[in-house]
Amino acid sequence: MKTHVSAFAPASVSNVAAGFDIMGFALDQPGDTVTIRLSESPGVRITKISGSDCELPRDPARNTAGAPVLALARMMGYSKGLEIEIHKGLSVGSGLGSSAASAVAAAVACNAILQAGLSNDELLPFAIEGEKIASEAVHVDNLAPCLWGGFILVRGYHPIDVVHLRVPHDLWCTVIHPHIEIETKESRKLLPRAVPLVDVVTQTGNAAGLVAGLLTGDLALLGRSLHDVIAEPVRGKHIPGFAGMKEAALKAGALGCSISGSGPALFALCDSKKTGGMIGAAMGQVLDRLGCPYDTYVSTINCTGARVLD
Amino acid sequence: MKTHVSAFAPASVSNVAAGFDIMGFALDQPGDTVTIRLSESPGVRITKISGSDCELPRDPARNTAGAPVLALARMMGYSKGLEIEIHKGLSVGSGLGSSAASAVAAAVACNAILQAGLSNDELLPFAIEGEKIASEAVHVDNLAPCLWGGFILVRGYHPIDVVHLRVPHDLWCTVIHPHIEIETKESRKLLPRAVPLVDVVTQTGNAAGLVAGLLTGDLALLGRSLHDVIAEPVRGKHIPGFAGMKEAALKAGALGCSISGSGPALFALCDSKKTGGMIGAAMGQVLDRLGCPYDTYVSTINCTGARVLD
Repeated sequence: MKTHVSAFAPASVSNVAAGFDIMGFALDQPGDTVTIRLSESPGVRITKISGSDCELPRDPARNTAGAPVLALARMMGYSKGLEIEIHKGLSVGSGLGSSAASAVAAAVACNAILQAGLSNDELLPFAIEGEKIASEAVHVDNLAPCLWGGFILVRGYHPIDVVHLRVPHDLWCTVIHPHIEIETKESRKLLPRAVPLVDVVTQTGNAAGLVAGLLTGDLALLGRSLHDVIAEPVRGKHIPGFAGMKEAALKAGALGCSISGSGPALFALCDSKKTGGMIGAAMGQVLDRLGCPYDTYVSTINCTGARVLD
Repeated sequence: MKTHVSAFAPASVSNVAAGFDIMGFALDQPGDTVTIRLSESPGVRITKISGSDCELPRDPARNTAGAPVLALARMMGYSKGLEIEIHKGLSVGSGLGSSAASAVAAAVACNAILQAGLSNDELLPFAIEGEKIASEAVHVDNLAPCLWGGFILVRGYHPIDVVHLRVPHDLWCTVIHPHIEIETKESRKLLPRAVPLVDVVTQTGNAAGLVAGLLTGDLALLGRSLHDVIAEPVRGKHIPGFAGMKEAALKAGALGCSISGSGPALFALCDSKKTGGMIGAAMGQVLDRLGCPYDTYVSTINCTGARVLD
């Protein structure tokens, strides 16, 4: 029996323009790594937090990685101790599913160390326990792609209905993360409570078009569908250089570009690694001119999801 | 050169639950037939209207079949006469795309008699001229399936972006048409002007799920996606026996059931002709108890669309 297990869970892009709260996909990198050690001393403890955010709560019940471990240990009737080490490759408030990555990595590592043998379907509710801490609303559109990998549609929430969408092999994603923090809770307050019916028609058309583009490999249709008339118009204003970055991405060959999750990260989809790099450089120049530091990532759609590390 | 041409255009189910204003599919029957004759006497005239609605306007400019003919003749610079005969297999205000069928049949017949050689893409704007007469809003989700056949997504309206969705071969549709009339214009007044964000998420999830179910042939997913939280709750109340018919359809094996267009017709999807018949019988019993006359149709998804008749 192992005494410790580490698991990696990737960043994810949620909302994906018209797929507000219902769509998301996983990236190859960055991501969070959670290590769980068996301990003779009873109780669940967070012993170390390293990486891009070291100031997260040390109380497991108030930590997105701690809560899934507490819930899993309780379910398994595990009475000895567990020590959690969290390495944040993802910044909190980046819009890249930071809380989902910690929650999923913790659930996957705990599942392995306790030999619980839970499937991803069974693990999802434990990961949700972690996500709940970061946001009032549960974002399965981050959690599901982070856990399973791939491009996910959350068809419904009552009950949760996760649909795995086939991904065209030539689909690449560029992500740019301006180093400003946007809290998901705050960002949701910007959203309209009600949406004009004409915008609902536009949004559902684009969400349906995005799925059709993915499943038929029609990247032009996918690109035409990457429009968000609900969240982007209000959230974009709070992201420095948003309009300039989007314009630069499209000029550099992006199929489409929008906000990742609640931002400030932006994503752009394209059809090759080379174009992905050019898009990242073009978007970066906009932030350079504003003097805003950032990271860029160019990634395929990660179809592996979270994984136990050797 | 022929002296007359007849064209048939089928009924269509639009909205399709969550696909409000963006989805529709064609039925095998019923449908409208429009015959156009060359005449030496200049001008466009409606010489006969037969079938289920004989009281339609005789002025071509105010008739859904007349307007496309006027527009096509003008575009072609045709200066002689055209006589239009309309046979309505579809009732006005049925929710089955009656105006679309007349407009499309007229456009297709006129295209043939004038040897205009227009493609369906090129014909669509002429059919729209007809549809405009029946409704302030242009319903391409009726027109496009009626013209091309098949299951259509109207991804966007500015410009019109028609996406042809592959249809599972084992998909059948039952339609029941209670003999009461609901005017599209009136029915649209029932709709909410704005939709709570939470309902937008539900609706887009179901619209996206419907497309995924169709394109992957996952009929269970398709069924789970056949929910409308926007139009059905308000329009259903104005259809006699609506709740009872829906319940009866689901009990009889329907994947899902909702209002066709703006009603009063209902559609239910299922996986065989036999089940389709049972669904029709079960829904009919509800209207029998109410003493409301009706027609039922069991049809595959008609992938041929409008056609010139020999």
